[in-house]
Formats: sequence, C-alpha cells, structure tokens
Amino acid sequence: MNGAQLIVNAAAASGIEYCFANPGTTEIPLVAAMASAPALKPVLSLFEGVCTGAADGYGRIAGKPAMTLTHLGPGFANGIANLHNARRANTPIVNVIGDHASWHVNYDPPLASDIQALAGAVSGWVRTSRTASGVGEDLQEAMRAAWQAKGQIASLILPMDLQAHAVTHTGVFAPIRPPVRRFAGDRIESVAKALRDGLRLVFIVGDEGLSVAGLEAAGRLAQLPGVRLFAETFPRLSYRGGGLPDLDRLPYFPEVAIEILEQYDLVVCAGVPEPISYFGYEGIPSRLAERERLLALADVGDDVAGALTALADALDAPAYIPTPQGIELPPGHAELTPQSVGQVLAASLPDDSIVSVEGGTCGYPFFTASARAARHRVLTNTGGAIGQGIPVGFGAALAERGNRVYCLQSDGSAQYTIQTLWSIAREQLPVVILIAANHRYAILQNELRRFGMTELGPEALKLTVLDSPRIDWKALAKGYGVPASTVHTNAELQRALANANADGGPCLIEMAL
Amino acid sequence: MNGAQLIVNAAAASGIEYCFANPGTTEIPLVAAMASAPALKPVLSLFEGVCTGAADGYGRIAGKPAMTLTHLGPGFANGIANLHNARRANTPIVNVIGDHASWHVNYDPPLASDIQALAGAVSGWVRTSRTASGVGEDLQEAMRAAWQAKGQIASLILPMDLQAHAVTHTGVFAPIRPPVRRFAGDRIESVAKALRDGLRLVFIVGDEGLSVAGLEAAGRLAQLPGVRLFAETFPRLSYRGGGLPDLDRLPYFPEVAIEILEQYDLVVCAGVPEPISYFGYEGIPSRLAERERLLALADVGDDVAGALTALADALDAPAYIPTPQGIELPPGHAELTPQSVGQVLAASLPDDSIVSVEGGTCGYPFFTASARAARHRVLTNTGGAIGQGIPVGFGAALAERGNRVYCLQSDGSAQYTIQTLWSIAREQLPVVILIAANHRYAILQNELRRFGMTELGPEALKLTVLDSPRIDWKALAKGYGVPASTVHTNAELQRALANANADGGPCLIEMAL
Repeated sequence: MNGAQLIVNAAAASGIEYCFANPGTTEIPLVAAMASAPALKPVLSLFEGVCTGAADGYGRIAGKPAMTLTHLGPGFANGIANLHNARRANTPIVNVIGDHASWHVNYDPPLASDIQALAGAVSGWVRTSRTASGVGEDLQEAMRAAWQAKGQIASLILPMDLQAHAVTHTGVFAPIRPPVRRFAGDRIESVAKALRDGLRLVFIVGDEGLSVAGLEAAGRLAQLPGVRLFAETFPRLSYRGGGLPDLDRLPYFPEVAIEILEQYDLVVCAGVPEPISYFGYEGIPSRLAERERLLALADVGDDVAGALTALADALDAPAYIPTPQGIELPPGHAELTPQSVGQVLAASLPDDSIVSVEGGTCGYPFFTASARAARHRVLTNTGGAIGQGIPVGFGAALAERGNRVYCLQSDGSAQYTIQTLWSIAREQLPVVILIAANHRYAILQNELRRFGMTELGPEALKLTVLDSPRIDWKALAKGYGVPASTVHTNAELQRALANANADGGPCLIEMAL
Repeated sequence: MNGAQLIVNAAAASGIEYCFANPGTTEIPLVAAMASAPALKPVLSLFEGVCTGAADGYGRIAGKPAMTLTHLGPGFANGIANLHNARRANTPIVNVIGDHASWHVNYDPPLASDIQALAGAVSGWVRTSRTASGVGEDLQEAMRAAWQAKGQIASLILPMDLQAHAVTHTGVFAPIRPPVRRFAGDRIESVAKALRDGLRLVFIVGDEGLSVAGLEAAGRLAQLPGVRLFAETFPRLSYRGGGLPDLDRLPYFPEVAIEILEQYDLVVCAGVPEPISYFGYEGIPSRLAERERLLALADVGDDVAGALTALADALDAPAYIPTPQGIELPPGHAELTPQSVGQVLAASLPDDSIVSVEGGTCGYPFFTASARAARHRVLTNTGGAIGQGIPVGFGAALAERGNRVYCLQSDGSAQYTIQTLWSIAREQLPVVILIAANHRYAILQNELRRFGMTELGPEALKLTVLDSPRIDWKALAKGYGVPASTVHTNAELQRALANANADGGPCLIEMAL
C-alpha cells in the first residue's frame, strides 16, 4: 500500500463519493490509486474551474463534501474562482493539490509556485502533508475541517513522493459524522420580545432558513403584524414553489435595499451575515442597515429553520398561507423577454427539479415567477465570481443522478467554464442549459450608465458587446457533444423544454433575447 | 480628470500599447477612460487566461509590456496560470486589478478576497494604490518594475474609488526607457580559459542567446573541439531556420539529459538558470549536473548574445556553417504522424512567421524539422501551466499585426483557454491553429507507464482519454467564428496550410492523429 492508496481509502471511509479531477504528473500515484479503487469515483474534467464548481453544486445538494484533485499551483489557480463562490456558499469541499516531490520542490523547477498562498486565499484550512504514513489522517483532518455546520474549504497539499511511498498502515479509517446544526434559545426570546414590544421587524433569511421547514416557519411569521421577510440576495440553496411561502430576495442595488430596510425598526438576521452592499458606490453606505438596528436570530451554520420555527411557536404565529400554484403563460407567438423566460421555465419545472441560476437578466424574473411553480430548489452565485452556473448544475446533477437540473445562464458568464458542456455530455446527465443570449455584458453597460456614461460610444460598446463574432451556441454545444436548439418565442421555448423533459439526456437551448 | 484617466495617460506615456481586459463593476471608471482615450487599445476577451496569455505572447514578441485588466481576486485568479508561464519566461507584464472601493472592502462583501496573496504568488512587484492623485505614478512604477532586462510581472491593485475620484494632476508623464542588457567580461575569460585548458564543455543556451546573433555565435562555438551546445528545453523565444545553426533542445526527461551532460567536464549556463529536472523522479537527482561542474557565462536578462559573441571572438572561433535549407516531405497519401506534422508544417512556414508550440506530441518533432525551414521564431510553454499556446499566439499576432502565426497545439491543453478562438476571430488575425487531435492526455498515459502501470485499465483510461464524447473541433471553431477543417494525410495538411497562407484571416486545422 502506498500513500495515494491511503488517501483514497481515507476519503472513501470519510464518506467522500466523488473526486472531480484534472490531474497531472505530480498526481500520477493518485490517478493510479483511483483507477484501481472504485470506492472513490473520479470524474475527469477539461478545466479545473469545472471541478471546483461541480464540487460546490454537489456539496450544496448532497450536503457533504466532494474531493477535487488539481495539479500544482497553476492547476489549482484555475479552480480558485469557483472555490471563491463555494467559500461564500459555505460549501464543504476537500481539495487535494498535488505538489512536486518534497525533495525536489526547493530547486524551484518550472512548475513550482507558492501553493500555500494560493490555497490560503480561498480555504479555511490548509495543510501540506509531511509523511507518507500520515496522509490518510491528513485527509480525514481536511474532511473534518470542511464538513462543519458552516462548511469550509479544506485544502491538502500532497507532495508526489508521499503519494508514491510504501506505507505500513492498516488502511482502515473511521467514518466521519455529519455536523449537527443548533440554535440559541436566548436569541429567540430577544426577537420575540422585540415583536411583543410592538417593534416592526424585517427578516433576512438565508442558509438552512430557506429549506422547506424554514420557509414554512417564515410563512407563519409573515402573518404577524409588523413583520416582513426577505430571502438573502444570493442564496446557496433555496426551496421554492409547491405552495411554499414566497420570500422575495433582498434587492441587489443598495439604495433600493436600504429604502426597504429603513421602513422597519429592526433588521433580523436569520442565517445571514450582516447585510452589506455588494459593491461600494459613492454616497451610499456599505452597511444596508445601521449596526444598532441589527438583531441576530441565527448565524450561518445554525439550525436556522429550527430557530424560525421556535420563534413562530413562541409568538403563536398562525399557519402559513400556501402560495397559489399555477403560472399564467405569456402569449406563445410573442418573442422572448427576460420576464417571459422566467414564466415559461417556471411553468415547465417538474417536481423536485433543481435550477442553477447565474446572471441577472433572466435570474430575477425567474425567481419572481417560480414561487407558483412545482416544488424545486434554486442555487445561485453566492460569491460573484462568474462561470459558476453550469459547473454547479453539473455537480448538482451528479449528487442526485436522474433528477432534472436546469442551468439558467447568461451568455457572458457561461463562457468562463464552457468546458462543462463536455462533462455533462460525458456523464449523460439530464441537465438543460438555457443560455440567455443577449450577446453583451449587460451588467457592465448598466454600471457604465450608473457611472454617468449616458451614451455608450463605439469603444465602450467594443468593451461590453459580445458581437463580431456572435457566438454560435448551437455549434459550441455540438462541439462538446450536447444537442442544442435556438428559440425565439415563448411557444418555442415551451416546446423545447417539453422535449428536454421527455428526453433523459442533456441539451442546450439558446434563447434569443 | 479622474484616477482612471490618469492611469490611461500614464500607461500610454510609458509605452504601453494594449490592454487585455476582462473588466467588471469595480473597473468601470477604467473602462470609461479607455473608451474615450484611443492611446491605450483595449482588447476584450471572454476569459482572463486569454488576457494574461496574450500579454505573455505580446511581451515576448514586442519586447515590452502589455497591460492586463482583471476584476478583483477571482477574475485575476483565472489569469494566474498563464502569468505563471509568463513569470517563467521573464516576460514583462503590468497587471491592473480592480478592487472594491477602499472604504468598502473591509466590510467583506461577497467578491472580496485576498488579492495581495493571489497577485504575490506570480508577481515580482505588487502594490495597492492609496491615493487617486498617485495612481499614475503607481502605474509608472509598475512599468519600471516590469520592464527590466530580466522582465517581471508587476501587479497594481486599484480600488474603485481611486479610479473614480477627481484628481489635480497635469496628466503628463515621462516615457519609460527600455532596459539595457549587459554581460560580464570576466565570465567570458573563465569559460575561454576552461576551453584553452582542454576541458570539454557543454553549453545550455537560453533567453537572448537564442536570438539571431546569439545563434550565430553559438554556431561558431560549435566548430570548436570539445564543445557542444543545446538550447534550453522550453525557450521563451527562439529564432530558427533560414540557415541558422541548429541547437537541439536539452531533452525533457532527466535521465536522458543527465547522460548527455555527464559526457562533458563542465556545463556552461548561457542565459539559463541552473539546469533542474522538470519533475522529481525517485532515484534520479534534481540537479541535472553537479553544482561544481557548472560555469555561468551569462545570466537570464544579460546580453547573452553579446557574451556568446565575445567568447567566440576570444577563442577565434571560425564562421558558423549554415544549416542547409529544404525539408524532405513525407509521402502525401500517408496518414499524419507527429513526425510528418512537424515536417509538413516546417516546410510550409513563410519567412518571419511565428510558431507557438504547446504540447509534446508534435512539438518535439516540429522543432527537429524546423532547423531547415525558413527563418521563424518559436515560442514555447516556459512554465508548464497548460492553456498557454493559443493565447500566446494571439498576443504575438497583435504584436506584429499582419505577420503569420501558427499555434501547434495539443488538444487537451487547448481546452483550458479555448475562448481565445473568439478573440482571434474578433481581431481577424492571420493565426493558424493546428490541433493535434489524439483525444487523450498522452503525457499522463506516459507517466502512468513510467510509474509502473504497464496496462491501462478502463478506469485509468477514463482519467486519461478525452473520448465519449470526442470533441468536435470543427464545430467548436465555428462556434467562435473561426473557419476550420479536418485533415488526415500529409497532403491534406499541406493543402490546408497553403490555403491558410493564401488567406488573410484565422483558421483552425484539426489534425487527426
């Protein structure tokens, strides 16, 4: 038995099922070990951002860590953007990063770099293994660090010689228990008292507060006078539809959010950090509410749903009113708009499906429409590093094999990890990729206007328009083995979605906007 | 005038011509400034690895820095892999990384991360601007740090508020002078003495030693008894063909390189660092030659060609013997092999063309064949982070607009920055992308065999074969607006290259191997 086989044993015993891998020479013993031990399923990708985004999506849906395997500093660096998002989603992930042999690295060979610094920028836990016999314990330590109620990124740097060396070890490891979520009873009392004192309260609900139990409790609280509830702007995982209470997301632009929060005496944080503006704009405060108006019901990683339920019970809140089902469809012959895309997609969702949303153009209208859809889950881009939506959808589809996943995706951001199409085709997963093809960085154009550029001249357009050439999405999808179509009207989109749902495999639908 | 306009002025005055950009909200003032100041040409890309790889290729050919513009930590992180290569090539590059407003960043908004740590891992110089009026001087300081005889990566982190703030500044900046290369005369004497003493010397030549003057001097030295010369294994820029002396590259695998170097008394480093094995293999030393057998003629960044010429003069070396021109073509009807690809491409090169090589399968055979080709320059992957070849070719093509560039590219590595095809189509550059489509990570299969896995089972194949689905290269190229064809035989490749050379635009040729 060698160090690499020890790692594979330790990972499998810990409960890790998948290894999203893009290995190189320094990971060869691990490749060999995975090739002979079916306990850990390796999933090869063409680009590391696919691996890390998939681990994020997998972790959110499966509720446990996947492993990633990347090649030295530069390979890992390619996965940083999606690890940044995973970190903001508190998704547990165990990264294994191959390094040069420990006796070789100090000679500064071409591929050497400061892996510690790169890993540290996105990880809550980083370790470099020092002995071959200890690598299994190192992996389990990484697993424990990652798999907490508030999940973390744990990165283990693994020199090649330690993977290859023979070890004396039983190779047997204990399973690792899932973390337990708790909430603080005294906080329930504080919030209940504020309400009994007649204060007006606005809640921002995140994390497990957006589970079925959490939303049901939120719906009960919403019946109380002086109470309003919002979901956080970018939830890691939000249940929606199927009659669940509809929590709007807190608006993105700070001036709008501040105006809403100002109407209440207190802002109650339920599974969210202090509300902060996404970007800093001159003359607008960073804090969306003054510190003295904040009240914490539950932290990220707490049993937020439990806390909300306990609060609803303490206040004798009535039953929630189920959101009516059924979506009014837009006219079939009309051309697609962001609103109509949201309505048609929401109306097409089968029970228990998953929607990975990246991009504002269609994302917000879909969220609005989806309250009346069948029960589904929404995953959003928590960290703002773009190129997340399709890999996250891919990982989610692996976590619940056979369940249908939709990626509602802006065209600009889809390009950063476009290689995911190949992975989806390779695994033949029922993932529907919907590309909102407006052929521009719409957010940049909006921000230029906010900055005072009332008219976008030819140079400004050159920096924000993805035209000349227009990306041919059908050809790209074909290139990676994914069947594709282009739709222009609501009826065409509806038909394409019906066909996709009837089929078991992946497809890409370019939506001309 | 605001900080962003100051940056643009300072960059243009410093001699920066291009800004390879993938901006976001925190770079909006810079986008607006570039949109109104044609002195700095912005080039938009779909992915940051394209920007940084292009800056590397541009810098190697133009001999001066380009600027990159990326969005916060995650955007910059996407560019790290190709900056790693650029660092190993000593290419001068000025990165500008937008950051949150300085008054906002400490609230830890979703897109905040440790940019300093990320930038530090690949940069020789990092600074965060502190005042709006100082940003122009900061940019010039970055330019001076980058543009040295041994080039560096200089990264300037630029908070958004400093870009937007009004400044009182003339907006006038001094030009920055190109660095001057020198060599040390006493080293010439030491090497000359060793030769006069009858020692046998093997040279490893890199950096500017692979210029025309350097190679001509190398060719003179090669006439002397007891002397052999190699090029470094991965040159940043090597002139080839047109009768120039043919310097083989030092072999990649350490056991082969060590055996060669052992045949000589001394190893002379001419513009290369100490020779080190690319990876560490058990039982093979990291140092390709013992320290006491090393002799430095010139360091990286020195006037290596000058040093070689001075040595040749000191030793009264005879004129070099021009390499005969003309390449014997393989049978037209025969199927392509890595060897025949090298021959056909070498025979097709027009004068002064540029070849960006990434991937071993066809790269080594091409280098062998190209000694007898027309005069051209070869750029290789200096740092081993894959996804470099096409972006470097793109940047090289911008540095010498109109000159023909070939990217000889393995299929696996092409995927990491495939979005470059769009950039090449957008700029309508005469770049020919040759994809060696063997549909596998051949290097991993070789390394698995070296590791002792004599037979690759189905799981090992799943981790090293890029089949199911096969990537449809013609479709991918079409997706990004690049005309493409597939060739199977030598005659087909020859014809496709002739057509490409006759045309002024880009094309992709899939070579079935």
